[in-house]
Amino acid sequence: MNIIKPTLILDEAKCKANIVFMANKAKKHNVVLRPHFKTHQSLDIGRWFKDVGITKITVSSLDMAEYFAEEWNDITVAFPVNILEIETINRLAKKITLNVLVESVATAQYLMKHLNHSVNFLIKLNIGNGRTGLLPNHTETINAILEATKQSSKLHFIGFLGHAGQTYNCRSKAEIQKVHDEAKTTIVSVKNKYKIQYPKLIASYGDTPSCSVAENFEGLDELRPGNFVFYDVMQVQIGDCTHNDIAVAMACPIVSIHKDRNELVIYGGGIHFSKDRIEHQGKTIFGIIAQNDTNGWNDPIPNMYVKALSQEHGVVVVPPTLIDQYNIGDLIYVLPIHSCMTADLMKRYKTLDGNDITMMLNH
Amino acid sequence: MNIIKPTLILDEAKCKANIVFMANKAKKHNVVLRPHFKTHQSLDIGRWFKDVGITKITVSSLDMAEYFAEEWNDITVAFPVNILEIETINRLAKKITLNVLVESVATAQYLMKHLNHSVNFLIKLNIGNGRTGLLPNHTETINAILEATKQSSKLHFIGFLGHAGQTYNCRSKAEIQKVHDEAKTTIVSVKNKYKIQYPKLIASYGDTPSCSVAENFEGLDELRPGNFVFYDVMQVQIGDCTHNDIAVAMACPIVSIHKDRNELVIYGGGIHFSKDRIEHQGKTIFGIIAQNDTNGWNDPIPNMYVKALSQEHGVVVVPPTLIDQYNIGDLIYVLPIHSCMTADLMKRYKTLDGNDITMMLNH
Repeated sequence: MNIIKPTLILDEAKCKANIVFMANKAKKHNVVLRPHFKTHQSLDIGRWFKDVGITKITVSSLDMAEYFAEEWNDITVAFPVNILEIETINRLAKKITLNVLVESVATAQYLMKHLNHSVNFLIKLNIGNGRTGLLPNHTETINAILEATKQSSKLHFIGFLGHAGQTYNCRSKAEIQKVHDEAKTTIVSVKNKYKIQYPKLIASYGDTPSCSVAENFEGLDELRPGNFVFYDVMQVQIGDCTHNDIAVAMACPIVSIHKDRNELVIYGGGIHFSKDRIEHQGKTIFGIIAQNDTNGWNDPIPNMYVKALSQEHGVVVVPPTLIDQYNIGDLIYVLPIHSCMTADLMKRYKTLDGNDITMMLNH
Repeated sequence: MNIIKPTLILDEAKCKANIVFMANKAKKHNVVLRPHFKTHQSLDIGRWFKDVGITKITVSSLDMAEYFAEEWNDITVAFPVNILEIETINRLAKKITLNVLVESVATAQYLMKHLNHSVNFLIKLNIGNGRTGLLPNHTETINAILEATKQSSKLHFIGFLGHAGQTYNCRSKAEIQKVHDEAKTTIVSVKNKYKIQYPKLIASYGDTPSCSVAENFEGLDELRPGNFVFYDVMQVQIGDCTHNDIAVAMACPIVSIHKDRNELVIYGGGIHFSKDRIEHQGKTIFGIIAQNDTNGWNDPIPNMYVKALSQEHGVVVVPPTLIDQYNIGDLIYVLPIHSCMTADLMKRYKTLDGNDITMMLNH
């Protein structure tokens, strides 16, 4: 491979193993895996999911739904409906089974008035994340939405959807397990409350940490993890994967060496990685460095990390014993803190075999 | 204007006023303004600089140099040379006056061996930023680079370049002034040391905070600020502009309203703003909200800010007295923390008059 600038390298084998792991887990627990494609944003990678029997997907925007509607016909947009994009919604609803999230009577009414085609909706529940959704005790609003839409010929209630994003604050499998148990109980109890009235309703659940770690999905109907397709340094810190599961790394050229302070400067900055960061051993870090291997990368190098990112520069701290082995023009591999954001910025992947993997380009 | 999703709005009048301000300042102090175009990345906006007499520019990558080489013929790439991109360097050097940064003998030797056309170089000095560059007391390396390149027919020494990026840690005009005085003294003293040997050498200097605030540029030959074209919330916090100078804001649709916790959720997340943040009144914030105006935006709304960003969601804290005035589908204007990163993500602007302004698309 002729890499001359920051390039997002994809380890296809690791990525496919992550896909198989999650598909098998869903099968074992008899739940539908409706993977979130916001992480990879790629029709090419989407086909690897088809290979393991996946037929339904999740995305995070209507633009992304339009991109994937080329090859997928059952798509959930896991984002509160943006009513300003009603034309896109109608275009999609004509073509595929479109599932959207509703959490207010106002949105439901707008949709009923303006939809030209059938659309399914899930009520978004706030199951602890505190970002969007109705709290389980917002019974009045839930009932008002159901009442308002009951007679609609276009807008069909199919269930509740929750995202236990608070698992991102966990730092061990045990903590993830605890958050999962609470969040699952919450959504399942709301589902059960409405089950008699709506016998077919589903509970859609999922975030990468809990779907990776938990072994009890009773009462849930589908899982929507996304990040697991690549994992990243943040997930390692959360405790739901190992460095060895991370399927993407950025190859970056060394452009400057500062032996006096044991630092390298790489071509690879905020416009490549994004500015996501984690606190690690008392330091803020923006990536960790993996050993170069004959083909790609290997284990992380202890105490070697990206300490700062500006627009195009990354400043890398190097263990003093290793600084002499680096030369201007060498490539190093950086494991990203947050693979979703990094992939979104890079807009393409190169596999270890040198193949190009395309992505959605516009959002 | 029919805005239906996150859209980066450009106030052309404010932007042009920022350009005129800096051009006049450079003229007044008899230094060349070589503005950094990494912030706007736009040939369209570049032409507004031509209108005030600018003929030389700075960029942060060779890709960006190729984009701007369509209309500009004297470009400095203010980033340590990435020797792996030698073909791009030769392609550019054939077409325009290309100035690059060298800070090691290894890079100088590589260039001398592989250049097909003349290229100017500046030695990058570390004048306090601690990211790249040689310290002023690294005389041995400076002399070695000059010695190695003395007889070169292709690689020509033209001066020293420094970036006092440590001004980004300042929080007042007085602090910026102090950092500027020290950094300027450093680069000018190195320049003076080599002036007898290289009578035409220049000192190239500049970051938005010091160029905005300082009034003493004696001994400097050119200024390279970039961010000032738009400014942003970070620059307001540093102390070198006011909210009224910020020339870009993101128009974002409201998709969810949480009256129980006085929060809105907007369509507008990390893939639109980037994850740059500042500490503000003891809180981490990712943007501040400006009042809607008949045409665009007006002053910031006190105590209204983006408290969290995920991939597509922004969570906005709203003063309790204002929460009732917002409806699903309304647009709000968010002033970005870091306009360079936001513009890079959005890849286009819309002016208040509804005109589209194009940008470089690939890097």
